[in-house]
Amino acid sequence: MSDELIIQSHKGSYAVNFNESLLDDVTELFENTPHFLIDANVARLYKIELASVINHPKVIVIEATEENKSIERVIPVIARLVANKARRGDTLVAIGGGIIQDITCFIASTLLRGMAWRFVPTTLLAQADSCIGSKSSINLGATKNILGTFNPPEKIHLCSKFLDTLDQKDIYSGVGEILKVHAIAGKETFDLLAATYDQLFTDRAVLRRYIGSALRIKQKYIELDEFDRGIRNIFNYGHSFGHAIESATNFGVPHGIAVAMGMDMANAIASGRGLTSIETYQRMHGVLKKNYASYASANIQTDALMTALMKDKKNTATQLVLILPIGNDAEIQRVEVVADEQFGDQCEVFLKALNK
Amino acid sequence: MSDELIIQSHKGSYAVNFNESLLDDVTELFENTPHFLIDANVARLYKIELASVINHPKVIVIEATEENKSIERVIPVIARLVANKARRGDTLVAIGGGIIQDITCFIASTLLRGMAWRFVPTTLLAQADSCIGSKSSINLGATKNILGTFNPPEKIHLCSKFLDTLDQKDIYSGVGEILKVHAIAGKETFDLLAATYDQLFTDRAVLRRYIGSALRIKQKYIELDEFDRGIRNIFNYGHSFGHAIESATNFGVPHGIAVAMGMDMANAIASGRGLTSIETYQRMHGVLKKNYASYASANIQTDALMTALMKDKKNTATQLVLILPIGNDAEIQRVEVVADEQFGDQCEVFLKALNK
Ligand SMILES: NC(=O)c1ccc[n+]([C@@H]2O[C@H](COP(=O)([O-])OP(=O)(O)OC[C@H]3O[C@@H](n4cnc5c(N)ncnc54)[C@H](O)[C@@H]3O)[C@@H](O)[C@H]2O)c1
Ligand SMILES: NC(=O)c1ccc[n+]([C@@H]2O[C@H](COP(=O)([O-])OP(=O)(O)OC[C@H]3O[C@@H](n4cnc5c(N)ncnc54)[C@H](O)[C@@H]3O)[C@@H](O)[C@H]2O)c1
Repeated sequence: MSDELIIQSHKGSYAVNFNESLLDDVTELFENTPHFLIDANVARLYKIELASVINHPKVIVIEATEENKSIERVIPVIARLVANKARRGDTLVAIGGGIIQDITCFIASTLLRGMAWRFVPTTLLAQADSCIGSKSSINLGATKNILGTFNPPEKIHLCSKFLDTLDQKDIYSGVGEILKVHAIAGKETFDLLAATYDQLFTDRAVLRRYIGSALRIKQKYIELDEFDRGIRNIFNYGHSFGHAIESATNFGVPHGIAVAMGMDMANAIASGRGLTSIETYQRMHGVLKKNYASYASANIQTDALMTALMKDKKNTATQLVLILPIGNDAEIQRVEVVADEQFGDQCEVFLKALNK
Repeated sequence: MSDELIIQSHKGSYAVNFNESLLDDVTELFENTPHFLIDANVARLYKIELASVINHPKVIVIEATEENKSIERVIPVIARLVANKARRGDTLVAIGGGIIQDITCFIASTLLRGMAWRFVPTTLLAQADSCIGSKSSINLGATKNILGTFNPPEKIHLCSKFLDTLDQKDIYSGVGEILKVHAIAGKETFDLLAATYDQLFTDRAVLRRYIGSALRIKQKYIELDEFDRGIRNIFNYGHSFGHAIESATNFGVPHGIAVAMGMDMANAIASGRGLTSIETYQRMHGVLKKNYASYASANIQTDALMTALMKDKKNTATQLVLILPIGNDAEIQRVEVVADEQFGDQCEVFLKALNK
């Protein structure tokens, strides 16, 4: 596989280049005076294949933690780039998952009034989802993702071999987002994926196929609504609840797994309120539960979840903006829901049943 | 005067609205859920006229210092906005000079992946120059203006009455930039301004006329080259030397005054190297010297100046990129100059003669 997907953006088009031999020859990463920002685990695990990167004078190794994704911790990284004499025409090259991507994309938006950046996604979540779509998100202290920009990379070098070393939980996390994207594409697309679910973990070719398919589904929406003012919002399916779950567990549940749990919760609530048939919930529950099973016993308090939900910038005390499956076709849509007693009860019932 | 200048930008067009009655009625500043960022001196001096702003629950008062324009000091301002529940659809309203502008514009670029902002420029430099052109510049520790974005405001509310309370040095500083802009427009335009120079300080109507004319000259270039990749570079005339002067004096010389001194120095060097006639230097020297006279005794060391010049991102140890007057018409152009011994000598001679 060595094809390309071309994405249109407000900065022109950029390519996702599928290159399964990247680890044999990384020459292409050195174009245009690179400054590397690389995940510490990736640097350790690929110290032979990426030796030329790791020994490059302008490399910065970063631990992929949420704390390091805060503006406070990004400042010393910028200072390092300045000390390394980063110039306007140079290129930042991110090698890692969503955290390294967010840090690099944000710096590329703000250093020297904008630099070019390229991305080597090394997690499934980054390969199948976050690598396209232009977004960066940076934390401010404990406030997650409050800062950010829209700034697509110049190119994405995608090699699925990186996934060999990924933790099982991070594979599940990436699959969580793949499930979400395919649910957006429609009932049939989701059901086809659900039928193949187990092979995602055993057959790399199948997983690769679904990475490509997730990116192509997402492409359509980000090209229509890059700045997330309208239709792209539906990609937050599972995210209102997912973010609340992450927050209520102090990020104990990986992002994509929280999203799968959040989708299941959204489906339960939509079914319970008659917005979609009970069949929607049942149809999707099996595969979603499989995806989040190892975190089902995470002790999520209803109160903590409700507090986190209310912090979502879209919500008020009485009115929630949610992305839910609507109608018999379970079309993923943005709807407003009254935060009534019934809603609280539904959340509580769902959380209590989680662990059963 | 209550007309408008419409500027085209990558985010659509925006207006400079000349409104001499702004201080009588500030209602228009309250459109679209404002969060105010206001210069502490302006808040103090205009506490009656701006009472409704100063008493607004979402106001942040900022001392206009270079330290406060650093990313380190911008973080708590962002935290305040978050605590004040800033939402995507809200508007940041900057009231102050270039420092408040830079802080607000940068935050508007990065908070919530982008917010709208409007600007009430209260210094001459901001009114006649920086308010248009989209740029923000933020310091990182002691590294000046290393961070930044291109992000035009939605609207500029320009009222020259604010200039009544401005320090004399800040009037001179703004006039320095006005001189620069008119030099770019050509010999005749500059000479006309030079002939009227003294009236800028005594006749508000004349000054207002030159604010408008400076903005219209700058408009042409920023519309052609908003992102400063080509022709807009010539607006750095006087700035390579100017920045070095600011840095060598630890910002003891106000920006626009350092620019006027830098223009005089650029002219001297261009004349000395035969790039323009000696007449260019002589023709402009009188008015430039008048503009920077009160800082002519600032003790600027050649060494410190050369070090600062070399730090400029465009320069190397042997080659300098400078904006100089070229030919008999003194057309302002970008040229490369060898950093030879002659160059060092010329700088030394200029600095030694400054105080004469
Ligand atoms: N900008 C966006 O569009 C976007 C979208 C979704 C999520 N995100 C953000 O991304 C982050 C989550 O990203 P993520 O899930 O990709 O993971 P990550 O960057 O947090 O990495 C997860 C773990 O995997 C390790 N790792 C990375 N590559 C590896 C490899 N090849 N082998 C072994 N270990 C490897 C990392 O060191 C880390 O420990 C969150 O901060 C989230 O907010 C951003
Ligand atoms: N973004 C841009 O395009 C751009 C362009 C040029 C300069 N700048 C930046 O702007 C800054 C300089 O800006 P500046 O010269 O406008 O001044 P400033 O913001 O530094 O203010 C200068 C002084 O005037 C005071 N002040 C402001 N308005 C006043 C009023 N109406 N009456 C009395 N006092 C008042 C301030 O409190 C301050 O003490 C520098 O940091 C420079 O880097 C930015």
